[in-house]
Amino acid sequence: MSHPDSRDVPPTLDHHDYESALHHLQIELVGLQREVIRQGRKLLLIFEGRDAAGKDGSIKRIVEHLSPREVRVVALGKPSDREQTQWYFQRFAPHLPAAGEIVLFNRSWYNRAGVEPVMGYCSKAECRNFLASAPVFERMLVESGIELYKFYLDISRQEQARRLESRRKDPLKQWKISPVDAAAQKHWRDYSRARDRMLLATHQAHSPWLLLRADDKRQARLNLIRELLRRAHGSKLKADPRVLRPFQNALIEGRWLAP
Amino acid sequence: MSHPDSRDVPPTLDHHDYESALHHLQIELVGLQREVIRQGRKLLLIFEGRDAAGKDGSIKRIVEHLSPREVRVVALGKPSDREQTQWYFQRFAPHLPAAGEIVLFNRSWYNRAGVEPVMGYCSKAECRNFLASAPVFERMLVESGIELYKFYLDISRQEQARRLESRRKDPLKQWKISPVDAAAQKHWRDYSRARDRMLLATHQAHSPWLLLRADDKRQARLNLIRELLRRAHGSKLKADPRVLRPFQNALIEGRWLAP
Amino acid sequence: MSHPDSRDVPPTLDHHDYESALHHLQIELVGLQREVIRQGRKLLLIFEGRDAAGKDGSIKRIVEHLSPREVRVVALGKPSDREQTQWYFQRFAPHLPAAGEIVLFNRSWYNRAGVEPVMGYCSKAECRNFLASAPVFERMLVESGIELYKFYLDISRQEQARRLESRRKDPLKQWKISPVDAAAQKHWRDYSRARDRMLLATHQAHSPWLLLRADDKRQARLNLIRELLRRAHGSKLKADPRVLRPFQNALIEGRWLAP
Amino acid sequence: MSHPDSRDVPPTLDHHDYESALHHLQIELVGLQREVIRQGRKLLLIFEGRDAAGKDGSIKRIVEHLSPREVRVVALGKPSDREQTQWYFQRFAPHLPAAGEIVLFNRSWYNRAGVEPVMGYCSKAECRNFLASAPVFERMLVESGIELYKFYLDISRQEQARRLESRRKDPLKQWKISPVDAAAQKHWRDYSRARDRMLLATHQAHSPWLLLRADDKRQARLNLIRELLRRAHGSKLKADPRVLRPFQNALIEGRWLAP
Repeated sequence: MSHPDSRDVPPTLDHHDYESALHHLQIELVGLQREVIRQGRKLLLIFEGRDAAGKDGSIKRIVEHLSPREVRVVALGKPSDREQTQWYFQRFAPHLPAAGEIVLFNRSWYNRAGVEPVMGYCSKAECRNFLASAPVFERMLVESGIELYKFYLDISRQEQARRLESRRKDPLKQWKISPVDAAAQKHWRDYSRARDRMLLATHQAHSPWLLLRADDKRQARLNLIRELLRRAHGSKLKADPRVLRPFQNALIEGRWLAP
Repeated sequence: MSHPDSRDVPPTLDHHDYESALHHLQIELVGLQREVIRQGRKLLLIFEGRDAAGKDGSIKRIVEHLSPREVRVVALGKPSDREQTQWYFQRFAPHLPAAGEIVLFNRSWYNRAGVEPVMGYCSKAECRNFLASAPVFERMLVESGIELYKFYLDISRQEQARRLESRRKDPLKQWKISPVDAAAQKHWRDYSRARDRMLLATHQAHSPWLLLRADDKRQARLNLIRELLRRAHGSKLKADPRVLRPFQNALIEGRWLAP
Repeated sequence: MSHPDSRDVPPTLDHHDYESALHHLQIELVGLQREVIRQGRKLLLIFEGRDAAGKDGSIKRIVEHLSPREVRVVALGKPSDREQTQWYFQRFAPHLPAAGEIVLFNRSWYNRAGVEPVMGYCSKAECRNFLASAPVFERMLVESGIELYKFYLDISRQEQARRLESRRKDPLKQWKISPVDAAAQKHWRDYSRARDRMLLATHQAHSPWLLLRADDKRQARLNLIRELLRRAHGSKLKADPRVLRPFQNALIEGRWLAP
Repeated sequence: MSHPDSRDVPPTLDHHDYESALHHLQIELVGLQREVIRQGRKLLLIFEGRDAAGKDGSIKRIVEHLSPREVRVVALGKPSDREQTQWYFQRFAPHLPAAGEIVLFNRSWYNRAGVEPVMGYCSKAECRNFLASAPVFERMLVESGIELYKFYLDISRQEQARRLESRRKDPLKQWKISPVDAAAQKHWRDYSRARDRMLLATHQAHSPWLLLRADDKRQARLNLIRELLRRAHGSKLKADPRVLRPFQNALIEGRWLAP
């Protein structure tokens, strides 16, 4: 089944409606954090997705009004030479949440299922080994009491081209231009295949992938936060299934992500 | 000399002028980061100030468009029981910048010169010891190549009261309400005295304190970023001396901060 | 089947024969380390066992002549208050070996299968959760290239009583006397049960338990090192099966450890 | 003044007398550790000295009978690429002692005053910067409650040649043979000069250097432990001034170390 056409997608929100909706969700996020602190819960949110899919922006809106002492955004650089010889997850371990903390990973160990194999930064065996280990590792975290939410943001090839182009013109986004980004379009299909393999291998009941169609940034952000609040805070909010689906639903209903 | 009256302060900016000015400064910040990465520089920015003085907001505007992999905001919680017995600076050390990194401390080791002595969380001797050690420690960092900028944001007692009150009504700022905050007004003069002692003891040529009158948030943010760009990026921008002054200038010209 | 009588155990070595045998094994250990460094291998040795079973002494003989920069003995104290709320394995992770390193854990994460449940320092659920997680965690380490060897040193109740008594008289072993040690005899059967449960739950092909009857310290040490060299260094040495057996062999031949 | 002749040195101990003396000192060390734990003291012992001067052996005798959970030997390898760009002391900071701990550094930050400048692993400016920073850094540690003892073990050129030669023949000391060691004889005078500069620059009342003539290993070890016990444990023991002297005494009495 091909990528659903635009009729499936909810209409774009105007600025005012978006801000208003976001405002209400952020109030609920503040409430969520208060509960996390009070009950000593541990939340780990992982953000993956294509280049320019909107990870940075989504993370910013989530943490915007949270207490900075109990929320952390982790965006690790490349491993040091010594770290490269260690257990792959070792350098991530110190950043896992303790009681009362919410941690957001802007990219994560899933580099080894995406950019690394596509760009040739790891061997095929290392990628395979990772795909087998990740669900096991995450299961351990979940069983230790960490609540894990994994978001995958996807966009269409045209939309990515448009955004990468606009980066080139936007002086505020200069840092986003890197050789790796340049490869995003060129290796589009490789990234698609890597994504599919990753989702299949690492989606599990205890650590599901939540997929976002992020061509419409506003809808994507709102729905992402809604789903988070529904799952982590028992809110009655519901993500729009045209924007966000758990991986298994997307599977059942045929191909849903950008091909 | 009393607190300067409002005639000294530049007129408030309207929303549009502020956004436009901020936009241009953020473009320069992107340029600064690019240089930091390219040249392997190490920047450490410390943000201190009274409760509700605007630290969180200033930090947000600085990092808003920077590459998240090379900028880190560090807001440490309270030390663990084991950390409490260690060398005071030990738990901060792992967060210092490596080559190419910009690190922003939202509050810092200076807790021991402010909230800790005022609230009785440390002994007088510990505070004294800290005030003697901090300039020595910082000097070492600076001599090792770290570029250190320390910002102190101050507001008037009335403005703080207003902001604390508005927090109580703003559902997005619920987390900001803590028993410690409540003490900010009650212990106003203790905080003023602690601030003065801290500035005197820890202002140095190689790690100066830059003081901000932050009753006007927009002016404070813009001037903070201007001064940072002037010092770290050789930009021609100049902070308005009615809003931001290096500590020694403020001293020479008499009392400048909130009494 | 009852505990095998003394006829099964090899005759005690006299001082000279022991020293001579140890000397030759230590030379091979030096050779092993050279290979580990040269080939970038990663070795993790875990030492568990009853109080006074001889863990400290065995570790000392292994590291005695190794290059201290590439071998580490890790004996963690009790977790800090913050660590207690984290993922259980988190505080061990930073100590795992990088390329070229041999790490020896003097006690380890297996505290949660021994002293903690017996002394009531963890809940039954935490112990159960640990027993399910440990093999999974270790498997991940092994699959990441860490070579893992787990030694369990056991002694008879009489021998332990004798050693604990001699500690009381030996001014060099004063530190070994702790309330926990005192409980070793009192809770003898609880420790036996905890040990059996642990061995059954966490023995696996990729991370086997190697059991040592350690009533005879010299024989225990020599056989431990022999088995290590055979497994890690391809040496032709063979541990005496009356002293050291892989767990599954001990199982097949009936109860082998102290009841 | 020339190197003192052998008449100055106390007669060599026979094996039995040495073992007996060491035994008694180790009992006192156990007592020291008990006090350190009970009173929450923090001890940091630094061991520096020429290659083959006996650092490893001295450390082994000190920790031999101490509780492994409250004593740590730290022998860091070379820094990772990322660490090389950080504040020089940063990678040492995590290893500093917390309350109740004794930490022994087998080589230390003083690499930057010895092997690094001699072998060209750091620039002259880096070495100079280090020599200026080390006393400042150490003073901070001491003022934070860490008790710091720095031992420098020296041997004569002939004795070093003899020991390096015997390493070549001793299969247990194969790992000690490295290109750096080979340079020890060749760069003898450079090492002497580096040592003198280091001692002058970093000897201070609050963190004195204790010098050991270590040509006689047994005397060196016994005297080192005696001095440690006298200083840290208030014992009545006295180091033999022919073997161990505080740096300032050695200075006053003319050249005392190997030229």
